[in-house]
Amino acid sequence: MISKNPKSEIRNPKLRIPGFKLSGISVGIKKKRKKDLALIFSETPANVAGIFTTNKIKAAPVRLDIERLASKKGQAIIINSGNANACTGKQGLKDAEETADITAKELGISSSLVYVASTGIIGRTLPMHKIKKAIPILVKKLSLRSINDVASAMMTTDTFPKIFSKKVEINGATGILTGIAKGAGMISPNMATMLCFILTNISVKIEALDSALRIAADKSFNRLVIDNDMSTNDTVLIMANGILKNIPIGENSPLYNKFENALLEVTYNLSKMIARDGEGATKLIEVIVKGTKTETDAEKVARAIANSLLVKTAIYGKNPNWGRIMAAIGYAGIDIKEDKISIYLNNLKLVDTGIGTNMKNKARDAFSEKEITLTVDLGLGKKEAKILTCDLTEEYIKINARYT
Amino acid sequence: MISKNPKSEIRNPKLRIPGFKLSGISVGIKKKRKKDLALIFSETPANVAGIFTTNKIKAAPVRLDIERLASKKGQAIIINSGNANACTGKQGLKDAEETADITAKELGISSSLVYVASTGIIGRTLPMHKIKKAIPILVKKLSLRSINDVASAMMTTDTFPKIFSKKVEINGATGILTGIAKGAGMISPNMATMLCFILTNISVKIEALDSALRIAADKSFNRLVIDNDMSTNDTVLIMANGILKNIPIGENSPLYNKFENALLEVTYNLSKMIARDGEGATKLIEVIVKGTKTETDAEKVARAIANSLLVKTAIYGKNPNWGRIMAAIGYAGIDIKEDKISIYLNNLKLVDTGIGTNMKNKARDAFSEKEITLTVDLGLGKKEAKILTCDLTEEYIKINARYT
Repeated sequence: MISKNPKSEIRNPKLRIPGFKLSGISVGIKKKRKKDLALIFSETPANVAGIFTTNKIKAAPVRLDIERLASKKGQAIIINSGNANACTGKQGLKDAEETADITAKELGISSSLVYVASTGIIGRTLPMHKIKKAIPILVKKLSLRSINDVASAMMTTDTFPKIFSKKVEINGATGILTGIAKGAGMISPNMATMLCFILTNISVKIEALDSALRIAADKSFNRLVIDNDMSTNDTVLIMANGILKNIPIGENSPLYNKFENALLEVTYNLSKMIARDGEGATKLIEVIVKGTKTETDAEKVARAIANSLLVKTAIYGKNPNWGRIMAAIGYAGIDIKEDKISIYLNNLKLVDTGIGTNMKNKARDAFSEKEITLTVDLGLGKKEAKILTCDLTEEYIKINARYT
Repeated sequence: MISKNPKSEIRNPKLRIPGFKLSGISVGIKKKRKKDLALIFSETPANVAGIFTTNKIKAAPVRLDIERLASKKGQAIIINSGNANACTGKQGLKDAEETADITAKELGISSSLVYVASTGIIGRTLPMHKIKKAIPILVKKLSLRSINDVASAMMTTDTFPKIFSKKVEINGATGILTGIAKGAGMISPNMATMLCFILTNISVKIEALDSALRIAADKSFNRLVIDNDMSTNDTVLIMANGILKNIPIGENSPLYNKFENALLEVTYNLSKMIARDGEGATKLIEVIVKGTKTETDAEKVARAIANSLLVKTAIYGKNPNWGRIMAAIGYAGIDIKEDKISIYLNNLKLVDTGIGTNMKNKARDAFSEKEITLTVDLGLGKKEAKILTCDLTEEYIKINARYT
């Protein structure tokens, strides 16, 4: 919630992705007439790849989508916020199916091509009477320019909609990759933890789409830590409708790397927006750990630091209390040498050979920035890893103590 | 910090443990003339067992104590608060040794029988001039009745001193086991996470003392979760001076179980005091997970719940948001069956066969209590495990944002 100006986060609210029509409206699932139901529709069936929560408790829409993804094809995604449709038993699954069926009927496509996503409170059944009545309106409102409405209708405790778009030149034509995400709380390290839909007009073969999505998610959404809680509803879907008519990109195509890099740029930037908008956050923190023998070692240490409540509260308090970083390094579960450790706050060295440099007063200046980098060099090797997180504030407690 | 009346936490402030003299004074390491230096002295050399932090970054006093514990003997412990003497390099080790040397000289014993413990801010060297000047006064003030002074001199963000004493009949004579602890923040699951000194007049063989301490710590201090950060200074020491002159208790003695149970009662009650005094806590939470195939499975789920910021903030907000408990169960890393899960808040069933029971309004009454029990039955077996924790409040953030 660092940004006070939602608009500033959106590169181009009037953005179009050729062949994709969108809509987002308020149907009364959330209070105060906020937008809470959205539809994404591809004019032609698209190749689809997806990543879902690894939580053993999976919301009904996640279970439905996992089934439907077997076909690797899709043409529509219907999304609601305000209600997670999780822990709702058989009724929940029935409701998710019915939502897809009605949407399919209104769109005149097969229900098997419709995906469903929900986010919000766990344990309440969906207000189906409201949703049923709203779907025809949602379909009627579909337009090429409604991406901002979709982003808004996905929000729960998010304070701004999250959209990132990237153009890629594909043999002289303009390919577009646009991601829409919601995040805020319950963001955990072990998977893509949120809702995110990425739409592209580029033609990509299904295996290439799947592998590029997994690689991008692993380096972005899976490197994001807000509160280490893992949601029951996390869903990332990418739809490639091929409207660009390029030769379909396969895993061995010369353009594959270009596509994968563009996708990572989209997912990494969405991840940064999510960290910046962590519940109650005042600062985006990039934790970089280097000088390890393996990347896994570096990641373990970076996660321990990013998960430490004491580190996160110290940064919130503008307090360069590096002792807490040292403690987190020490319990990360890898072998270290205390006297080889250096710690930097942005470019300022706080710790050298495991001992404080007395730079605490200078360090305080770094906290005037809204984005800070903590770099730890363990001095044991050449590998590194990066984790995105945010600080922990009273506001996080307030938001989560009174939610529902 | 639930208790507003520190006195109420102390069973008997004038408690004595035969053969142990104690003192605690203010020497200016902490601000506002708070007590910050303490001494425990056994009139005769005692058998000693200890457990230390498993953090790879160990404070200087911890490294010194680990060395000295090789002899399994000890006669004195000198403890300071306000400064952890951690991440202080060679100077830190020299200071810890010098503290022990001066104490030994004043007491007229060998320095190898003196243990040192520190707690407080990491990364600053000890103010040795203050400590050196104070040790003779500390020795002069030794008395049988100063246990409360020691408990106070160990406190950092603790809001009340923690002492628990238990009498055990040993062949007609009165054995006493008294524990003094400090806790509050940086309490993590993987070890005995705090300072704790247990004194007993009972004669116990060294192997029996060691094994009883490990078993007791595993069922108490190691089942305690405040913020999952693990300190560099955690030290638990037990001294058995044998003044009771009983036949020394060995692992096969008929009295061993009685001793072990009494020790567990002491450490479990100290653990409860620590959870109740978790930084900013308003509620002590006992998480019980049962119905699993193994105890390890139950423990994993209980830890996931006890570590969930979303669960802890919901309880603080008096909000029976059981969906967050379901989510934590789902990411705990064990196989579960969603439709076999029951969740109870005290005796009230919130979830049955994985679905809410609509008891939320009744549930709110449970939150008027300062101690609550969350019980999860996974319906898969007969094993169970218990974890102690507390809620997470704005006060935790305030304390840790401004510490130092």
